Amino acid sequence: MSPKVSQEHMEQRRAEILKAAEKVFIEYGYERATMKHIMDAANVSRGGLYQYFSNKEAMFETILEEGLSLELDETLEMLKENATSYWDMLMKTIFGEGGEPDDEMDPLAPAKLEFFIIGRNDEHRRAYGKTRYNNGLSIYAHIIEDGQRSGEFSKKFDHEIIARSIIAFIDGLAVEDAMLSREDLRIKEQSVLFVEYLKMALGISEHSTDGK
Amino acid sequence: MSPKVSQEHMEQRRAEILKAAEKVFIEYGYERATMKHIMDAANVSRGGLYQYFSNKEAMFETILEEGLSLELDETLEMLKENATSYWDMLMKTIFGEGGEPDDEMDPLAPAKLEFFIIGRNDEHRRAYGKTRYNNGLSIYAHIIEDGQRSGEFSKKFDHEIIARSIIAFIDGLAVEDAMLSREDLRIKEQSVLFVEYLKMALGISEHSTDGK
Repeated sequence: MSPKVSQEHMEQRRAEILKAAEKVFIEYGYERATMKHIMDAANVSRGGLYQYFSNKEAMFETILEEGLSLELDETLEMLKENATSYWDMLMKTIFGEGGEPDDEMDPLAPAKLEFFIIGRNDEHRRAYGKTRYNNGLSIYAHIIEDGQRSGEFSKKFDHEIIARSIIAFIDGLAVEDAMLSREDLRIKEQSVLFVEYLKMALGISEHSTDGK
Repeated sequence: MSPKVSQEHMEQRRAEILKAAEKVFIEYGYERATMKHIMDAANVSRGGLYQYFSNKEAMFETILEEGLSLELDETLEMLKENATSYWDMLMKTIFGEGGEPDDEMDPLAPAKLEFFIIGRNDEHRRAYGKTRYNNGLSIYAHIIEDGQRSGEFSKKFDHEIIARSIIAFIDGLAVEDAMLSREDLRIKEQSVLFVEYLKMALGISEHSTDGK
């Protein structure tokens, strides 16, 4: 077997293991998941698993990183192809391609909450959480700032505080999604009201959002 | 020693232990805190501690219960004495006696998030979390519904969805408070913007909130 094939095989196996690990984290949550669960789910030996990842934390961070990078690529691609206004861009960034509130939530959200909240006193994890928060913040803040500069959005409120409120809204829904059943939560209706809030904060009237 | 004195003594000791336990939960968080930490902080023997509480979960629930009941009593008292409008009532219920956004957060909030998020697959804890959520929801929903009936608030949006959004906002800030430093968070500025959102959702103009 040539080294090139071996390299490809390694990458494929690594991707399969990550996929199995993600399912384990969704099922058990971060704290309760073990490397043994992941070995079983990925059908890999202990030695085989540790060849790729040295511990559970490293695996989880890899899943977060790759998820974020995929999300960012998809968002940028979508914006480049489809966005017709800063408002449209903001809606697609928050709600995905349709740009409309729905009842979907990230299935990994409860495990992410565990990872960051329980790890809040660990220096590495805290620094990582802060970087992640700031990256998310800067995406929303940039869209809002550009929209304010272009005159599409009102400058009445600070772009950074509005951006923070978007993250707080998503995090608040994630907490409730972890604790309550989906029907109890009414994610879509809460999201529709959140859109009304953003319209108010950004000075968007119905007229200016329907493209007429 | 008469049984009455003994009873008083027991209650006082129980209160002291709970106070020490609360400090331990704030310092270590729920998952990392142990009965040993609480024994040391309360200066009580293992036998002494287990005489009052059978496990960590029971202690934490007691702290939550007594905190909630105190908060509810204080809120009701404050509303009876001071509230001049449903808007005023809502602001005091969210922000405490001053009825104004500030930078304060519940120091036990990160431990509460751990308790409910990690316990989400435990039947007892999930039922308890749901009851707690619904109790909080009904307080906000009642104030908003009464304000809508009285004509002080607009009926444009459903009172229950607005009430849910208040809890989501508080939970979202709690997540960020657990992960970021207080200065990074800008709780007060986020809260000021949240008040603007509520004014929009409830059809409150500046005119009608300054009592003129």
